[in-house]
Amino acid sequence: MSSEPEFGKVVVFGVGLIGGSFALALKAAGQVEEVVGFGRSLSTLTQALDLGIIDRIGINPGQETVDADLVLIATPVGQMPEIMARIAPYLGADTVVTDGGSTKSDVVAAVREHFGERAGQFVPAHPIAGAENSGAAAARADLYQHKKVVLTPLPENPVLNVARVRSAWEWCGAQLFELTPEEHDRVFAAVSHLPHLLSFALVHGLAVREDSDLYFNFAASGFRDFTRIAASHPEMWRDICLANRVALLGELDRYQEQLDELHDALSRGDGVVLEKTFDVARTARRAWDGSKSR
Amino acid sequence: MSSEPEFGKVVVFGVGLIGGSFALALKAAGQVEEVVGFGRSLSTLTQALDLGIIDRIGINPGQETVDADLVLIATPVGQMPEIMARIAPYLGADTVVTDGGSTKSDVVAAVREHFGERAGQFVPAHPIAGAENSGAAAARADLYQHKKVVLTPLPENPVLNVARVRSAWEWCGAQLFELTPEEHDRVFAAVSHLPHLLSFALVHGLAVREDSDLYFNFAASGFRDFTRIAASHPEMWRDICLANRVALLGELDRYQEQLDELHDALSRGDGVVLEKTFDVARTARRAWDGSKSR
Repeated sequence: MSSEPEFGKVVVFGVGLIGGSFALALKAAGQVEEVVGFGRSLSTLTQALDLGIIDRIGINPGQETVDADLVLIATPVGQMPEIMARIAPYLGADTVVTDGGSTKSDVVAAVREHFGERAGQFVPAHPIAGAENSGAAAARADLYQHKKVVLTPLPENPVLNVARVRSAWEWCGAQLFELTPEEHDRVFAAVSHLPHLLSFALVHGLAVREDSDLYFNFAASGFRDFTRIAASHPEMWRDICLANRVALLGELDRYQEQLDELHDALSRGDGVVLEKTFDVARTARRAWDGSKSR
Repeated sequence: MSSEPEFGKVVVFGVGLIGGSFALALKAAGQVEEVVGFGRSLSTLTQALDLGIIDRIGINPGQETVDADLVLIATPVGQMPEIMARIAPYLGADTVVTDGGSTKSDVVAAVREHFGERAGQFVPAHPIAGAENSGAAAARADLYQHKKVVLTPLPENPVLNVARVRSAWEWCGAQLFELTPEEHDRVFAAVSHLPHLLSFALVHGLAVREDSDLYFNFAASGFRDFTRIAASHPEMWRDICLANRVALLGELDRYQEQLDELHDALSRGDGVVLEKTFDVARTARRAWDGSKSR
């Protein structure tokens, strides 16, 4: 192991759970000389400074980008294009930029728009870490230990740039994967975005009833787990659904076909189809190693 | 408190989690003189005897029913009509019968068919206790502590019979509620049966894909919780869905309308509708005191 940090200056836009934990992990690994933070709220930035997440609050994004080794954009996806536009003209020759967004096709489109010929300097990424809590106070150096991070490299990315982003996440303790942006969005539409939509829909459908108290009173542990994700942040999930709406609509269509089939089976009292469907699901769910896949 | 047990002989059909825990709880409370067990499997009955759940393995259902104070039918709902047919002719004048089924309209229909003029001696009930584990070995005296039990009394039930069943469950530590069988089935279709169907459908839809490994590999904690109930017992849930299919189809119809509305909103990129739906859901989910409602 080298005694020199791998990264000199790292600039983080958004010093909440995702960006803050990234900074803390690189610091804990001794792999960064200086972390400069940007954010929408001065109080969050001050808190991040107090917590040792960042070393300095940035003033001018362009100026800090010129000599940055690595820039992480860890804001909600909707704010990324504006940040890209502000830093793109000031990228140093060796600066590599990455992000922490939950959707990738839209991030890639924004990169192409704002980075243009320098798109090769942007390596898109999605760290898969729970977001039950948010904000700088929730950041932890070990958040990414044994978590998955999906890179969706662009054809323009030099191998070296992908390797640098990969290395940063490996210092954080993460397990790295690569998908195309389209594969990524299709997979997460199915295993994350659709379940959120379904859970929101179930709770909404009960909440709007006049006698909703009667239903909630008798809801038990199965309901509790099924609807945990319905307590997720509405604005964040609105943005994710809109950003990934093509893939999400495709998954929703498939799911509605599944429900139509189960509806038909129920209507005609076809226990064979019901049991077979449930059995395939149970076998797959039991075979899935969910505990390692958080 | 009286030093005499409230119940002399209690007969339990099905000495698994539900029936076994009921027997253990009454014994722990000192409120039963003798528990006689019936079941499909001799090994389970022997195990229940060894564990002190029952005092004696029953041989002849009719003979044991004549002088029973209380009979609990705690088998899968599909087996209840046959048991009702076998005991109905032998009911003692003071014998009260109850059940532990997850659906009630079908149980009530079977009661009317098999008990006829003696339907007043049957007080239908549904103890709401998790079933992650099953079998006599899973039975626990404290399973029903602070759990809810819903009674769905019949117009024919004398007040005294309802009071006796209520009292038995109160000795088990449960909190008692009363609904009509129709209300019960409507509420549980919405908060239990539909979520199970939706969770089974999601996992099934992924499991049948050729590239299902890709999806399961990136599924994380939201997926894990949403799909926990998809590992439930296929045969048991087939029977529940069929037994409650009228109410369940009604809930499924309403849910599909919800999904259609969200599909439309997504299609036209309507973030306002999405965010409002998610927000109503999140507010209701956060207000729900799920920890007390297990």
